[in-house]
Amino acid sequence: MRAALFTGQQSLVVEEREAVPPAAGEVQVEVAYAGICGTDLHILHGAMADRVRLPAVLGHESSGRIAALGEGVEGWREGDLVAVLPLRWCGECAACLAGHTHVCQRLKVIGVDLPGAMQGRWNVPADTLVALPRELPLDHAALVEPTAVAVHDVRTAAVQPGEKAVIVGGGPIGLLIGCVVRAEGGEPVVVELDAHRRAVAERIGLPTIDPAEVDVAAYVEDWTGGGGAPVSFEVSGAEAGMRTATDVLAVRGRCVVVAIHTEPKPVDLNRIFLRELRLFGARVYERQDFEHAVDLVAAGTVPAGELISRIVPITNAGEAFDLLQSGGGVVKVLVDCQAE
Amino acid sequence: MRAALFTGQQSLVVEEREAVPPAAGEVQVEVAYAGICGTDLHILHGAMADRVRLPAVLGHESSGRIAALGEGVEGWREGDLVAVLPLRWCGECAACLAGHTHVCQRLKVIGVDLPGAMQGRWNVPADTLVALPRELPLDHAALVEPTAVAVHDVRTAAVQPGEKAVIVGGGPIGLLIGCVVRAEGGEPVVVELDAHRRAVAERIGLPTIDPAEVDVAAYVEDWTGGGGAPVSFEVSGAEAGMRTATDVLAVRGRCVVVAIHTEPKPVDLNRIFLRELRLFGARVYERQDFEHAVDLVAAGTVPAGELISRIVPITNAGEAFDLLQSGGGVVKVLVDCQAE
Ligand SMILES: [Zn+2]
Ligand SMILES: [Zn+2]
Repeated sequence: MRAALFTGQQSLVVEEREAVPPAAGEVQVEVAYAGICGTDLHILHGAMADRVRLPAVLGHESSGRIAALGEGVEGWREGDLVAVLPLRWCGECAACLAGHTHVCQRLKVIGVDLPGAMQGRWNVPADTLVALPRELPLDHAALVEPTAVAVHDVRTAAVQPGEKAVIVGGGPIGLLIGCVVRAEGGEPVVVELDAHRRAVAERIGLPTIDPAEVDVAAYVEDWTGGGGAPVSFEVSGAEAGMRTATDVLAVRGRCVVVAIHTEPKPVDLNRIFLRELRLFGARVYERQDFEHAVDLVAAGTVPAGELISRIVPITNAGEAFDLLQSGGGVVKVLVDCQAE
Repeated sequence: MRAALFTGQQSLVVEEREAVPPAAGEVQVEVAYAGICGTDLHILHGAMADRVRLPAVLGHESSGRIAALGEGVEGWREGDLVAVLPLRWCGECAACLAGHTHVCQRLKVIGVDLPGAMQGRWNVPADTLVALPRELPLDHAALVEPTAVAVHDVRTAAVQPGEKAVIVGGGPIGLLIGCVVRAEGGEPVVVELDAHRRAVAERIGLPTIDPAEVDVAAYVEDWTGGGGAPVSFEVSGAEAGMRTATDVLAVRGRCVVVAIHTEPKPVDLNRIFLRELRLFGARVYERQDFEHAVDLVAAGTVPAGELISRIVPITNAGEAFDLLQSGGGVVKVLVDCQAE
């Protein structure tokens, strides 16, 4: 099998490796596709160096089929199609004891803290598996994990039918949030500077605003008859994006903070006070989000095919990162982990 | 009657005036006491100049008795003891139509945008009145308005019995929040730099932390067995206070933003994301909060007598502002509006 190894200093090495049999309680997955996300790029650029042990196999977005079962694993069979819910929690901290295992105070992400999906055969604990329907193409299935993020974000906002939602940032997660908002009966609009991303959004039926051309707060005030939007999602990671996400909100409006802001950012606390706004942090997903994401991708509610810009063979995994890095022109890039 | 007039440039003039009969739908209140709060000080220093029409009668915290009824006023009698809920809303904006009149997009506060309580006789719309029980001393009753703020804040946080709550800032509102949290069965702790305020807090049974001496986040982690607190209140208005209010929170913890932050302040959005924290803005109060505040003050649950540091005659109203301005040594200062 091949494995793509991050060896530090922005370099990725693809090497031939011997597959290891799954340990007791583990399952060996023949990985079909692994998606690359912003976090992977951050790691490549040296972020989270305290968490990533080199050489590291990245990849936490994946699809595949079961190749072998470790001792004691029940309820699964060789050949089953699966996605992997890549979280490991401690079970002992206050968050875990309160039932919020996905925000465990010692949460480990498989593909960040532990070996990930960018390899031909991947051993994972059996309890991380999520069943995929037979008819779901495995390239589409690689989008289940980011869709689960979007499902969790929209559930956190508790979007109601007919509610307008402003999505600040039209990268993969922003677009997926738009699709999920629409599936819930909400009315999304995506605020995005990049013309290619706006074009993709429009192609999948999501209205867009170019904040370089339009005063977003004025637009939303007009769109909502003067009241502002009940919901916004901050998916840009930028200071201006955070500002927009509060500027557009109605009295008692809910803003979900989705993006990672590594530094504290100025927030308009006066507006939060005056309008009694609510800010919600949302991190990864719970199993119910993941399973709902499978349904949405399988039903085509999330148009996975439209969001996959390129599939790159694992033998050339570095190119996949380069494509994403260059920014314009791609939404989702997958790595084909069985390519020779 | 006397009236204390803010004439601009930090000056307050007390003058003799003729009382005006109440118009239709109004009630004339013989004001007993008017409290001074931070907002009044801000106005004195020139803030909100766009809202305050000079010369202005300040005062939105008050108690009194009905002296006369305007035409068409029903349900009230001369001599009734009352507090005034000093809000006027438009009834037409999106917030009002959604039932959130206290955060009306065109909200006016009586005592800021309209003439306030620092006068012997004060005409107010009858629907602003809140009945006070006969046995409630009117000096104590002047604390009903700030107590209503605290009730609204605690209700926004939805504090549950047994929950620990960190109150960042031990001014009058912070102390009142502490009393209301305790009344709800919560366990408050007040973080306050000023030794006099800490002493008052301790005297009324609220535990305190001096953030100059103690690492507050470490203290709270220890106090909560490593999990962090489920609730915090940002009542300091300071950047460091906002930081503390998020630093102390448990996974899914709720922070209520109570203080006015006129400038956007850095907020630790990464922690909000990682722990799925929730931030809630809370502004003034609704009628149910005000009525509950009457009960709490009347029952002594809020120890009003302990919080009133000084009562100053209206003939010397400027001194009341000076006392508050000097900072140390006083909590609540009232103006006796009938003093000759
Ligand atoms: Zn845990
Ligand atoms: Zn209104």
